[in-house]
Amino acid sequence: MSTDETTRRAWAYLSRVVEPPHTGLRDFVETEGPEAAAAAIRARRLPAPYDALLGPTQARAEIDTAAQDLETAARLGVRLVTPEDEEWPGWQLWSLRAADTVERGGPPLALWVRGPGNLADAATAGIGVIGARNSTSYGEYVTGQLVGGLVEGGWTVVSGGAFGIDGTAHRACLGSGGTTIAVMACGIDVDYPSAHSALFAAIARDGLIVSEYPPGTTAARHRFLTRNRLVAALSTAVVVVEAGRRSGAANTAAWARKLGRPLGAVPGPVTSAMSVGCNRMIADEQAALITGAAALISLAAPDGEGGPNRGPVRTTDALAGDRQLVYEAIPARGAITADEIAVNAGVGVTAVMAALAMLEVDGFVAAVGDGWAIVRD
Amino acid sequence: MSTDETTRRAWAYLSRVVEPPHTGLRDFVETEGPEAAAAAIRARRLPAPYDALLGPTQARAEIDTAAQDLETAARLGVRLVTPEDEEWPGWQLWSLRAADTVERGGPPLALWVRGPGNLADAATAGIGVIGARNSTSYGEYVTGQLVGGLVEGGWTVVSGGAFGIDGTAHRACLGSGGTTIAVMACGIDVDYPSAHSALFAAIARDGLIVSEYPPGTTAARHRFLTRNRLVAALSTAVVVVEAGRRSGAANTAAWARKLGRPLGAVPGPVTSAMSVGCNRMIADEQAALITGAAALISLAAPDGEGGPNRGPVRTTDALAGDRQLVYEAIPARGAITADEIAVNAGVGVTAVMAALAMLEVDGFVAAVGDGWAIVRD
Repeated sequence: MSTDETTRRAWAYLSRVVEPPHTGLRDFVETEGPEAAAAAIRARRLPAPYDALLGPTQARAEIDTAAQDLETAARLGVRLVTPEDEEWPGWQLWSLRAADTVERGGPPLALWVRGPGNLADAATAGIGVIGARNSTSYGEYVTGQLVGGLVEGGWTVVSGGAFGIDGTAHRACLGSGGTTIAVMACGIDVDYPSAHSALFAAIARDGLIVSEYPPGTTAARHRFLTRNRLVAALSTAVVVVEAGRRSGAANTAAWARKLGRPLGAVPGPVTSAMSVGCNRMIADEQAALITGAAALISLAAPDGEGGPNRGPVRTTDALAGDRQLVYEAIPARGAITADEIAVNAGVGVTAVMAALAMLEVDGFVAAVGDGWAIVRD
Repeated sequence: MSTDETTRRAWAYLSRVVEPPHTGLRDFVETEGPEAAAAAIRARRLPAPYDALLGPTQARAEIDTAAQDLETAARLGVRLVTPEDEEWPGWQLWSLRAADTVERGGPPLALWVRGPGNLADAATAGIGVIGARNSTSYGEYVTGQLVGGLVEGGWTVVSGGAFGIDGTAHRACLGSGGTTIAVMACGIDVDYPSAHSALFAAIARDGLIVSEYPPGTTAARHRFLTRNRLVAALSTAVVVVEAGRRSGAANTAAWARKLGRPLGAVPGPVTSAMSVGCNRMIADEQAALITGAAALISLAAPDGEGGPNRGPVRTTDALAGDRQLVYEAIPARGAITADEIAVNAGVGVTAVMAALAMLEVDGFVAAVGDGWAIVRD
């Protein structure tokens, strides 16, 4: 077995050993690397503070279906994308680090991905188009109009693959020749809802299907809520086309706001139950009123920055702790050594090195000669 | 002829001698009183700076149909309401003083009124419900719902008597047993649009019809714009139910904003041409999103203040010039003489007396013994 294959098996094992996402596991993997982390969990030898993982991993530690999962995946044309891969959407997922405090709110450990595109590239131009399952003809018509405009502008449509607005958005995108990303609340090999199996097959052919759950995972209520954070994270902006008084779309909208993604909503008749949620988000100034694709695009890229073919709008706002101190200690121009950074930042050299490694993975900094420099777009 | 009748004839003469409203004429009448002002205009003897009125009054100075106008009015059950009358809506019209700089933007000189109610009382609880002439069934349905809720809360519905949303609002109000005020862009004896003559008769029976134009004045484009400011001024808040891309309702909405009246708009389908104006006002944060009567009422009376049976929310924000200086020179408690005010305000005693007279007319201050005190609600 090649090193690469061993590593991939470790990731696959880790993706199933606890219900994802799990902050403690992710921290452990970031510190120890996937193979050592997987081995330690299997051997039940976890150093403090990672011994907290003993409980959560107990039930599944010895169930190793990694080889089988990767085989199933390969058969379906599914790949396991990890932070070590080029198409890992590090920028998009970065904002989730600040949500680590929310249960199952942090970044995913890894993502199972199906479809021809490069996930990071597609997500760079992603706009979330979401809404009620029991949509009306009004909502479906507006979704089609919006998506048509987004595709024309080169944007990717991100949604949740559900009935109603989600499905309409994916279909309209494929129909317009655009790229769409469906983020699943179940294993990537599970068609949920099953009535959308043809749609999922079409997305797998021309777009991308993404799940943080290992193959075979069934859809469950808590997984929809967990999935919603990824729809928001993989989007530059999110629009809610229709939403009832209590709608799952409101949860995705809340994630968009928490992650600093501009949120829009399409207004609708005050007589329509399916526009109550949208009208309320607008009235409460939680969402901008969106009347068409142009308004949505300028919400996503107010200065014409970011979006298709322009690279992501990189933000360092989400940097926290040592990473923030270290990042800010590096001059805007030129390189600086880790020792100098330690002095500037008032952070120990070991911590500086750890922070630099993370910052490098996420593309904020790059090693230049013996030192480190800010990465410029 | 009694003094009262002489005065009334002077007001009637002045109401026709120039196209109302006219700031110069109003200032002259406020300074000289209606009889002296009318006599001076008739005699073409106008002291500076009022000689500026010579031009505008030239054409009509010698056409005195005052007696005839008052006769016509009496026959139709119309009365001429002036700032000297108890039902003069002084508070509501006060805000227009700040708009004197806008052509035909200042307060009216006098108002021709028809109907059983007391105009000042009715306007205290007034909410403007306006919108497109070519309304849709959606807009008409929502108007009915809104107005029903307003009437239940004891509010008066103010509108412009036009086709579409205006007419629907008046009708819904009468149908719910409420009080409605129609502000006309023509003489009060002219039914414009003529298809609304039955509606106007019903309003005259149970509500109030108001016009600043003397009897017989025909509707004209500039009079609609001029009328719109009165719809806004006589309303505590204004809601636009439907408005196209270019709508007269946008002009009334602009007046509401200029006069500091909270403005609301009902969202509608982004696919409806008649909701384009409303959605845009909401998107541009010019209007609050209104989904029903409760939202509209809390827009009009955010702290439960003002509105029906609670008296108007008096505002001194619109006070300007000497009036503001004089008002602010009076202590919050206790009385103070005009001489003391002059010293405090740094304004000459004559100007102080003039300002006090105006402030008293509008109910901001009251004479107490030898001095003046702030009027408290």
